[in-house]
Amino acid sequence: MSTGHAVLLLRCLDRPGIVAATAGLIFELGGNIVAADQHADDEHGLFVQRIEFDLLGKDPDWDHVRSRVEEVAGRFDMAWTLHRPGRPDRIAILASKEGHCVLDLLSRVVLHELDAEIAFVAANHADLESEVSQRAVVFHHVPAGDDREAHEAALLDLIESDDIDLVVLARYMRILSAGFVERFEHRIINIHHSFLPAFIGARPYHQAHARGVKIIGATAHYATADLDEGPIIAQDVVPVSHRDTAEDLRRRGRDLERVVLARAVRLHLERRILAYANRTVVFD
Amino acid sequence: MSTGHAVLLLRCLDRPGIVAATAGLIFELGGNIVAADQHADDEHGLFVQRIEFDLLGKDPDWDHVRSRVEEVAGRFDMAWTLHRPGRPDRIAILASKEGHCVLDLLSRVVLHELDAEIAFVAANHADLESEVSQRAVVFHHVPAGDDREAHEAALLDLIESDDIDLVVLARYMRILSAGFVERFEHRIINIHHSFLPAFIGARPYHQAHARGVKIIGATAHYATADLDEGPIIAQDVVPVSHRDTAEDLRRRGRDLERVVLARAVRLHLERRILAYANRTVVFD
Amino acid sequence: MSTGHAVLLLRCLDRPGIVAATAGLIFELGGNIVAADQHADDEHGLFVQRIEFDLLGKDPDWDHVRSRVEEVAGRFDMAWTLHRPGRPDRIAILASKEGHCVLDLLSRVVLHELDAEIAFVAANHADLESEVSQRAVVFHHVPAGDDREAHEAALLDLIESDDIDLVVLARYMRILSAGFVERFEHRIINIHHSFLPAFIGARPYHQAHARGVKIIGATAHYATADLDEGPIIAQDVVPVSHRDTAEDLRRRGRDLERVVLARAVRLHLERRILAYANRTVVFD
Amino acid sequence: MSTGHAVLLLRCLDRPGIVAATAGLIFELGGNIVAADQHADDEHGLFVQRIEFDLLGKDPDWDHVRSRVEEVAGRFDMAWTLHRPGRPDRIAILASKEGHCVLDLLSRVVLHELDAEIAFVAANHADLESEVSQRAVVFHHVPAGDDREAHEAALLDLIESDDIDLVVLARYMRILSAGFVERFEHRIINIHHSFLPAFIGARPYHQAHARGVKIIGATAHYATADLDEGPIIAQDVVPVSHRDTAEDLRRRGRDLERVVLARAVRLHLERRILAYANRTVVFD
Repeated sequence: MSTGHAVLLLRCLDRPGIVAATAGLIFELGGNIVAADQHADDEHGLFVQRIEFDLLGKDPDWDHVRSRVEEVAGRFDMAWTLHRPGRPDRIAILASKEGHCVLDLLSRVVLHELDAEIAFVAANHADLESEVSQRAVVFHHVPAGDDREAHEAALLDLIESDDIDLVVLARYMRILSAGFVERFEHRIINIHHSFLPAFIGARPYHQAHARGVKIIGATAHYATADLDEGPIIAQDVVPVSHRDTAEDLRRRGRDLERVVLARAVRLHLERRILAYANRTVVFD
Repeated sequence: MSTGHAVLLLRCLDRPGIVAATAGLIFELGGNIVAADQHADDEHGLFVQRIEFDLLGKDPDWDHVRSRVEEVAGRFDMAWTLHRPGRPDRIAILASKEGHCVLDLLSRVVLHELDAEIAFVAANHADLESEVSQRAVVFHHVPAGDDREAHEAALLDLIESDDIDLVVLARYMRILSAGFVERFEHRIINIHHSFLPAFIGARPYHQAHARGVKIIGATAHYATADLDEGPIIAQDVVPVSHRDTAEDLRRRGRDLERVVLARAVRLHLERRILAYANRTVVFD
Repeated sequence: MSTGHAVLLLRCLDRPGIVAATAGLIFELGGNIVAADQHADDEHGLFVQRIEFDLLGKDPDWDHVRSRVEEVAGRFDMAWTLHRPGRPDRIAILASKEGHCVLDLLSRVVLHELDAEIAFVAANHADLESEVSQRAVVFHHVPAGDDREAHEAALLDLIESDDIDLVVLARYMRILSAGFVERFEHRIINIHHSFLPAFIGARPYHQAHARGVKIIGATAHYATADLDEGPIIAQDVVPVSHRDTAEDLRRRGRDLERVVLARAVRLHLERRILAYANRTVVFD
Repeated sequence: MSTGHAVLLLRCLDRPGIVAATAGLIFELGGNIVAADQHADDEHGLFVQRIEFDLLGKDPDWDHVRSRVEEVAGRFDMAWTLHRPGRPDRIAILASKEGHCVLDLLSRVVLHELDAEIAFVAANHADLESEVSQRAVVFHHVPAGDDREAHEAALLDLIESDDIDLVVLARYMRILSAGFVERFEHRIINIHHSFLPAFIGARPYHQAHARGVKIIGATAHYATADLDEGPIIAQDVVPVSHRDTAEDLRRRGRDLERVVLARAVRLHLERRILAYANRTVVFD
């Protein structure tokens, strides 16, 4: 990726002239728009945009770029971020006993499907230790016990001392406190093993089996203080039948979980998600 | 279809020897098994089976067949039905204002995709009258007003005086009383415009939009006294995105509703559904 | 829809400044962008854009709008069309014996799912006459016989004398001559009953069954002189199994055909398709 | 799994009495049918059946079982296999440079999603060596060079000296000779990165992109002498759009390939596939 590559994400109240202004800005900076996507949310009266661009010529003056963006943003009262792919994002994975999502994420980083570094895997059980360590990734066993506060404090310590950009709950199976979650707004991605909002809470495959549904799903979302209520990033489903036991649903569901979680993580890393209220705009 | 064609559906507690007994029975009757499917529900300890067979030779003695089935059924304490496709099932469609499911079902009967007769369409609004009548199908306008009892009594009258085998709620949009529903156990099919159990109740597309889901669905189920809790027959889904307004979801959903409802009706007409507890076994 | 509503579609060689220019244009005209989408095709070096906008104020001066668009288009050497939803497009449906797509399209127009008028249905067999006529749509029986030229001439006559905007081949099942097809570039939509490019040509469900595939599909595309090679607009698929006979595949396929064809027609009517080379950009 | 657990697969010409005979056999052996599925292929006049059963009581006399099966099979001229899950199947994976399918299979074995042992991974390039070895699986680098015969001889040697039950071509990317393939009939599973029969041969994602399809797929099949023409076991698809470059199709396709290949391998290991002619019956 060239040194002039960047992604600009912005959000403001919708009104005429925004696209003209941002397109004009990139043009004037001598930039080439690689990809641009936008969305007007009529209900919330919001406009959001993602512009991926290349500044031609070597060694762009990023301070100048930022100040010019600031200027345009000021006119429209925009919230904005400018992301320059440089060092890969650092990910902390929180897990429990089940390894399918964890090992899948690890493989995808090795295969360069995800442009990120796995800083560590932390789990409240030790089951995954050898598999994770074998792949040369740091594993922390952080028992949960009865003291949620101590457990979360230990996790926080690990996260904050390791320069983490994104926390991935890869079947972590525990409820994090509101305090913990709010510290990392739109920076914690959880995989829930159902088609939300169906089967919120524990043991969704058993719930799905008990209800006799003909399709099951998985949902990746940003974690918020309200369990399983955060903005949905990605979902997928697979048909099932009366032949499938609750155990079969779990098995089929694991493939959904892997793929949906990896998809959400990729979208996040590539700055393709704009989240607000309880929803996301995903520019894929 | 030959005069010797029949479908045997049966259900009993699971134990060794059932398949040997039923397969032996068909063999001994000189029958040819066209299709057979079975399922053991370990959780409920139940065994269910569907055997579609042809009695070779002309003019079979159906009384003899029934008595032989009765004999085997007695040994295993089976509930059973023997269905001989003869006169097509007669369907009553209940509707409201929206016509997409109604017109779709009417077309499918004309096109011989559904082996049934539409006895009539009854709706609490008159909007669909001309479209239905134009297609040479009887239309009854049965206003609902404030008096649910009178409304249901009028519907019941129509149904009972017209030799109806199956009632289809094609976006009927009203809640039928428990008394009404229980009168037609597993003979009322409803289409709910969401992926149940997500978005139970009213305005599911608005609920889905408000929740920001990335997939929407439709569910056909047998109506029971508990609203939207009946045994699910068929479901399907379609991906959506932030670009879709609630109105877009409705539009996309209409295609799901048409296809899922028609599928459920076909499965019912072909005696491919065995329903018990809150679930179905669908032999498709 | 307001009288100031319009859709601008444009295409040109990609280079910096296009979005700034078009966004600036709409802004300057006092227009509000309702929806905008764009795509840069790096392989062909092309840029395409769809802008749906509203000119505020009553009674816009469309000649002025056109001349301003012309000016910007000239600078970038753009091909463009400006579509003002006014009178609905007029559709001619060509069919053969099978009615599922025809009746589906007719229902959708009645239900306002498609903003169009069906000018007539023309078929080389008379089978559908009564069903179409019953729905108050003109039916022309145009036998094909051995003389393709005469058959096509008769069709052309009907089409040209009836102010037709779009021709829909709803299981027309015959190959139109290159001369015929080229006369209506990107104005003939065909439904092919397979997942193209698999199973090109005749009897695709039989081909699919013979090959033992586990999924079947349907494809809507603009017709071109090369049979089944035109730009693909929409595709959909459904899983099948060894249980499905070739006849079952046909049945399952009919639902795909209905939905995929209707989707393609809607996308066309809403000016959401930009076709070039053998491909489409679909802004949905 | 109990020591009395077994799977009986059988195939014969269809005629009355088969199910009665096999069900009677299991009953008489004192067996409990865990799952049974059957299929009559009218076109080929074949009947196939899969019976998963448990012989109650400890330490069944398997010689007796086999001779009783032989007896019934003799009456109907059946081809049959009796599989007793004991030692897990031993798998040889052949690969090239790309690791996504290889690493996925390795993870699934570790996670007990596949009941098998990976005997080794052999590849014509060394790229995957460290990742495979790190996971404690044997890696053989078997360069292909210009001498296909020598390359295949080396592979054969590895396979035959290692008691291999199943060969998995995990993006092996080379064409094996007919002689090689025929040696392992229905024991080589290949993943082809397209929705067969579309895009047979090399670079299917580029073909798919060039054709402008709206859906891409992946296909797992038994390898036969005719390239990409073997019996299809599993397929899956994912929607794509004009936004996706050929590279994006490859990325999206990798998830399909992983899941479809793993599914086919599982079905094979669980003896759920009956292959004949160019087709499979999959009892899932």
